[in-house]
Amino acid sequence: MKNIAASITISAIAATGVEAQEERRRIAPAAVYDVAPGLGHFTDEVLFGEVWERKELAPRDRSLVTVSAIVSTGKTAQIAAHVGAALDNGLKPAEIGELITQLAFYSGWPNAISAVEETKKVFDARQIGAVGNSEDARMELEATAEAARKAIVDTTVAPTAAVLSDLTNRVLFGDLWRRPDLSARDRSLVTMSALIAIGQPEQLPFHANRAMDNGLTAAETSEVLSHIAFYAGWPRAMSAVPVLKHVFEKRKE
Amino acid sequence: MKNIAASITISAIAATGVEAQEERRRIAPAAVYDVAPGLGHFTDEVLFGEVWERKELAPRDRSLVTVSAIVSTGKTAQIAAHVGAALDNGLKPAEIGELITQLAFYSGWPNAISAVEETKKVFDARQIGAVGNSEDARMELEATAEAARKAIVDTTVAPTAAVLSDLTNRVLFGDLWRRPDLSARDRSLVTMSALIAIGQPEQLPFHANRAMDNGLTAAETSEVLSHIAFYAGWPRAMSAVPVLKHVFEKRKE
Amino acid sequence: MKNIAASITISAIAATGVEAQEERRRIAPAAVYDVAPGLGHFTDEVLFGEVWERKELAPRDRSLVTVSAIVSTGKTAQIAAHVGAALDNGLKPAEIGELITQLAFYSGWPNAISAVEETKKVFDARQIGAVGNSEDARMELEATAEAARKAIVDTTVAPTAAVLSDLTNRVLFGDLWRRPDLSARDRSLVTMSALIAIGQPEQLPFHANRAMDNGLTAAETSEVLSHIAFYAGWPRAMSAVPVLKHVFEKRKE
Repeated sequence: MKNIAASITISAIAATGVEAQEERRRIAPAAVYDVAPGLGHFTDEVLFGEVWERKELAPRDRSLVTVSAIVSTGKTAQIAAHVGAALDNGLKPAEIGELITQLAFYSGWPNAISAVEETKKVFDARQIGAVGNSEDARMELEATAEAARKAIVDTTVAPTAAVLSDLTNRVLFGDLWRRPDLSARDRSLVTMSALIAIGQPEQLPFHANRAMDNGLTAAETSEVLSHIAFYAGWPRAMSAVPVLKHVFEKRKE
Repeated sequence: MKNIAASITISAIAATGVEAQEERRRIAPAAVYDVAPGLGHFTDEVLFGEVWERKELAPRDRSLVTVSAIVSTGKTAQIAAHVGAALDNGLKPAEIGELITQLAFYSGWPNAISAVEETKKVFDARQIGAVGNSEDARMELEATAEAARKAIVDTTVAPTAAVLSDLTNRVLFGDLWRRPDLSARDRSLVTMSALIAIGQPEQLPFHANRAMDNGLTAAETSEVLSHIAFYAGWPRAMSAVPVLKHVFEKRKE
Repeated sequence: MKNIAASITISAIAATGVEAQEERRRIAPAAVYDVAPGLGHFTDEVLFGEVWERKELAPRDRSLVTVSAIVSTGKTAQIAAHVGAALDNGLKPAEIGELITQLAFYSGWPNAISAVEETKKVFDARQIGAVGNSEDARMELEATAEAARKAIVDTTVAPTAAVLSDLTNRVLFGDLWRRPDLSARDRSLVTMSALIAIGQPEQLPFHANRAMDNGLTAAETSEVLSHIAFYAGWPRAMSAVPVLKHVFEKRKE
């Protein structure tokens, strides 16, 4: 957490100055305490003092969830600070780039393009050069699950929107999801976080199952909910609860 | 309304110049008439000429609703003008700070942090210093309603998301909602406005009932809908209508 | 497409420099390739190399859909580039102004005001002066459909929200929708695109039918879905599929 505190305080929020050295470290900048002292309290005591400290989800995962929530909801002003924290928490530059690519499809190009611009500033400041495509082999999708997915799209989407169906099969699942630049588990976690954050739980069961099929535990999935509540608001997290409840129950059967 | 017009025209939208002295006062800046004359017409004739003038909801309440809608949907560019108008309409600086704190939980930290930054500029320009926490006693939640609320969270949220459930009970309803820095009625109005604006009507019945339990009248609640339609769009307001209809009917039984 | 590429590359995304002259033209700026090479690939190969090139929807319509998606979701940073492209694709300045006016009502005033500011910069750079109101006659709404619409609002909205109902009948359908500054077909296409982009499919059937009643073909409507998936994200497009499926089926009966 030292790293998160440091990168958020220093790189993104100028001049917290003395406050940062106080007996209890403040991450919330002075302006928060000046304008909304309650928000300062909850930021330092609960969000950074408690939630980010919980061991049930690794700091790298918390950064993945946080950046996904912020990018997918278009909160441009907060991207640089959290991309900095994500690098400190172990996300590789190429993984951050690929997270943004994934979210172009799952939350729209404008969010992704704005995220690129903010991320470029962080990369430049840290002298991180151009990121290359991974040279690893393309990832294989699990054949049965992929066939089932395709059948659903062909049946439910194609008759109404043939081009959308084709792009889904050929570009998303034929290309994007097979790119080796982000692991299958991380890619699903990014997608799941975005769907919760943008309030689109309809497609959540598919991606939550995919995340858990690829190694995310149920305990981690549940922890994602309490983390994301702070970055996308309680209502979005609460609306995802019954959806994930159903997913958990189905997987136990 | 003079104050709203003045603070919005002068503090936020530079140089409306001659137009502002015209026989019928224009609040919409000249650029609106240049690019979208229809929007100028609707802004001055309907939004400011009619809606803000209606007596069925006090200007202070209209500001509370407007700022809540703008902050919760992340419309950073419009925050300063409407915070200025809110101060002119009688909201105290500490109440605005607490509104932002409330919306951190109900629409996510990034919106609240951006709102702090914009509000700080307005406070600085008006030489409003650091806001302190209220020294009033913590607010008591109505015991039966609070027990019922907790039972629902314990039953429906805890089994899927234990930490989210704990934070809801301990931090939101054990701390945030009891802070005396914003009245119970205003806090519910802020929350209700945010839920309508972000398109999250699932949790609206609980908070609309809470708002009315704490003094908001049904007529005011209905007026909130027509006001918020302008700041969050007609579709969000329309989707809230059947939800509030159900709430009104239940309360009459 | 040459125009889109040119205006987006040159007017909005500074200094793509050498890349722009490469054997295969790149529209994605260099920063996209540096930070997220996958996003560069999908932008140039799929979004601009394939989707924008499809003949099933005219470039002018694609611009109408794109600008509507971007304005209604508040993606301010991308507005100028796409307003420039829209002008190149044949949208008149007055039509863009009226599109913004329409979206004030369908996605809230803050989005429209920010869109005006961005559009003003583009108009100024191209020496486009103040846009006037059309002098054409007001448009007539089809009497039976309008009577049916009004009856629904009077029955379902008025008892809960009398003012919202009155504004809907008097201002939206009595004034906005009758303005001759944007054709009935385009106005419905703009509204439909916004409803899909903001994730509000409840009101989509009404406006999709209106768009098709006014000349949008089913093939074009379907193509809107695949186009908008890139600008508002796949989940929003996917959630609109069953709604449009139902609309298409009803119209065949």
